[in-house]
Amino acid sequence: MRDQFRSWCLDAGLTVTIDAVGNMFAHRRGTNEDLAPVVMGSHLDTQFNGGRFDGIVGVLAGLEVMRTLNDAGVTTRRPLEIAMWTNEEGARFSPPMIGSAAFAGVHSVEWVHARTADDGATFGAELERVGYKGDVPAGGRALDAYFELHIEQGPELDARSIPVGVVTHGYSVHGFIVDITGETAHTGPWPMELRKNALVGGAMLCVAINEIGLRYASTEGKATAARLVAWPNKPGILSETAQFTGDVRHPDPSAADAMRDEFLEAIKDAAARSHCEMRIADQWHWGADIFDQELVSLVRTTAKRLEIPTFELPSQAGHDAYHVAKVAPTAMIFTPCRGGITHNNHELTTLDETLPGLRVLLNAVVARADRLTGGSSRA
Amino acid sequence: MRDQFRSWCLDAGLTVTIDAVGNMFAHRRGTNEDLAPVVMGSHLDTQFNGGRFDGIVGVLAGLEVMRTLNDAGVTTRRPLEIAMWTNEEGARFSPPMIGSAAFAGVHSVEWVHARTADDGATFGAELERVGYKGDVPAGGRALDAYFELHIEQGPELDARSIPVGVVTHGYSVHGFIVDITGETAHTGPWPMELRKNALVGGAMLCVAINEIGLRYASTEGKATAARLVAWPNKPGILSETAQFTGDVRHPDPSAADAMRDEFLEAIKDAAARSHCEMRIADQWHWGADIFDQELVSLVRTTAKRLEIPTFELPSQAGHDAYHVAKVAPTAMIFTPCRGGITHNNHELTTLDETLPGLRVLLNAVVARADRLTGGSSRA
Repeated sequence: MRDQFRSWCLDAGLTVTIDAVGNMFAHRRGTNEDLAPVVMGSHLDTQFNGGRFDGIVGVLAGLEVMRTLNDAGVTTRRPLEIAMWTNEEGARFSPPMIGSAAFAGVHSVEWVHARTADDGATFGAELERVGYKGDVPAGGRALDAYFELHIEQGPELDARSIPVGVVTHGYSVHGFIVDITGETAHTGPWPMELRKNALVGGAMLCVAINEIGLRYASTEGKATAARLVAWPNKPGILSETAQFTGDVRHPDPSAADAMRDEFLEAIKDAAARSHCEMRIADQWHWGADIFDQELVSLVRTTAKRLEIPTFELPSQAGHDAYHVAKVAPTAMIFTPCRGGITHNNHELTTLDETLPGLRVLLNAVVARADRLTGGSSRA
Repeated sequence: MRDQFRSWCLDAGLTVTIDAVGNMFAHRRGTNEDLAPVVMGSHLDTQFNGGRFDGIVGVLAGLEVMRTLNDAGVTTRRPLEIAMWTNEEGARFSPPMIGSAAFAGVHSVEWVHARTADDGATFGAELERVGYKGDVPAGGRALDAYFELHIEQGPELDARSIPVGVVTHGYSVHGFIVDITGETAHTGPWPMELRKNALVGGAMLCVAINEIGLRYASTEGKATAARLVAWPNKPGILSETAQFTGDVRHPDPSAADAMRDEFLEAIKDAAARSHCEMRIADQWHWGADIFDQELVSLVRTTAKRLEIPTFELPSQAGHDAYHVAKVAPTAMIFTPCRGGITHNNHELTTLDETLPGLRVLLNAVVARADRLTGGSSRA
């Protein structure tokens, strides 16, 4: 996948660099290489059982912009880049969005390399094995702007037959990894009141977080039990340990905070009822006010100029754009996907549904790259 | 482990045969080899994180009986055998007690060989790999009697400082494997009311069965969520499938039936609440009236004759004896274990605590083997 992408970039005359966490950057020279680049991008990895469009459309959209400018013989004032961020999905290595997070300085390169998969492999060793542990430092350089085109992963655009979503803000998300410690014992004779079954403790968290989501569903809140791993998790024995991964999210940050607080109470309640110890091993948060209003406005006005209908909506999923926004002005463009189905083999979109968003991306990127103000230096 | 056991059996002058599912039989000649053997035995396998006594004590007790008779120069009328049953625990291959079940004709050899572990290995191929796929048919021959000495796996004998438990009956157990089918989707935008998260469905079963156990705890009922495996079970995605393994058990068969019925209702309820399909993939039952009252009485009177104190109690765990009882008169002898702790590295018993039970076994086995009535043929 990475080799194919690099080969297409080289064919398009781009210079490809790879950073220390495997992020790939395909650079197209501007007339003033002293200026910071305007960047488009997303990710190429997918979920187990995931689709072929989530992330991939955004990377290939960047490539299509480059090819179109090549065909038209256009050179922009600022250089352009495509960014391909490593491990957005977190399907094998946790946390998700680790490549863009490292670029934004959220995690150190050493910490990222030390992440370990459920199969025991480490991130750094696997990057090296596939030949994508690059020699360029992760981050530490200025981007003039970052645009991420992405399928909506929700039903709004498809239901309205509107081709472009102007992403105004993000859901506020609180995520958790909870370690649960119980004690092994026999499933037969061991008395119920003495049992410390870590699987039951973890299951209580799964049920509780789902109930929180249902309580906030009428205001578009979501809460998910995504992962539960218990050990030994075998017939005949109570489990000694378990680990839970899940999150709560809401468009209103104060409601998201309330959901978080309810889950923290649920952890205490589940610990008491299951007689297990519970410890929050990791906790993360993405805020709601992520995007640069000047850049969002540029997307909106570009679509209007091109007479492409738009719908304004928040992003409910996490995206690399959330991390990049910490170090550069950032905006997202959503394109439709059928029925909002995603992280599923039935994920589907077509070229016709995607082209209007791509045209907005192309024109917004060129406008941004050619503007005469704000000449921040690359380095 | 098997090699060591076989080597000790050969040193004791026994003839070792291995059947098609890996059960080992160590035969000591009687004065009348035409009579069916009196068999002692248990299992050598253990649980993940299990102890060193559960099962192993019963096999080594059989070996000690053989050595003691060798030292005393005694030959019994009927031949004696030690049985070492394959995969009693079910730690890697499900179901548990598969070796004794095959011997009793509950499962065919082909079905047993086709069992597949979570790591993809099959039972038959693994037996062959370790060199214990034997050439003797599984079962199909008469046993005069089967005695299984086993640590109690409960606290009664230890609490009372009584060395021998006369096992009068078993708990009635209903076990279940439930397949849960949902649908993958994104943990962010996918609406709560459309979610079919198989992990949540499985977690509901874990919580429900534990609650059933707590409701029956005052009358010594037990109910266990032992295993829950979901897929993909990863951050960012709702799980498409899950599989639950668990059971309910009670000393009163009608209460066990009521617990089973409550769990069947809980499956319907969880399916409705999680929007998942739930299907019982496997269901098993062990009855309460397992043991041969003549053999139980022999254990009781033998202990009395030896002036060894006994306590009468039911078996709460599953044992190979439950399956063997379908094809031969069967009894169990319990010996103490500290605090009833089992399926745990802290499982502990001592030689002093075990010897009284071993003396009862030795004397009951010799009495049974030498009796002049009931001369059923071996074949």
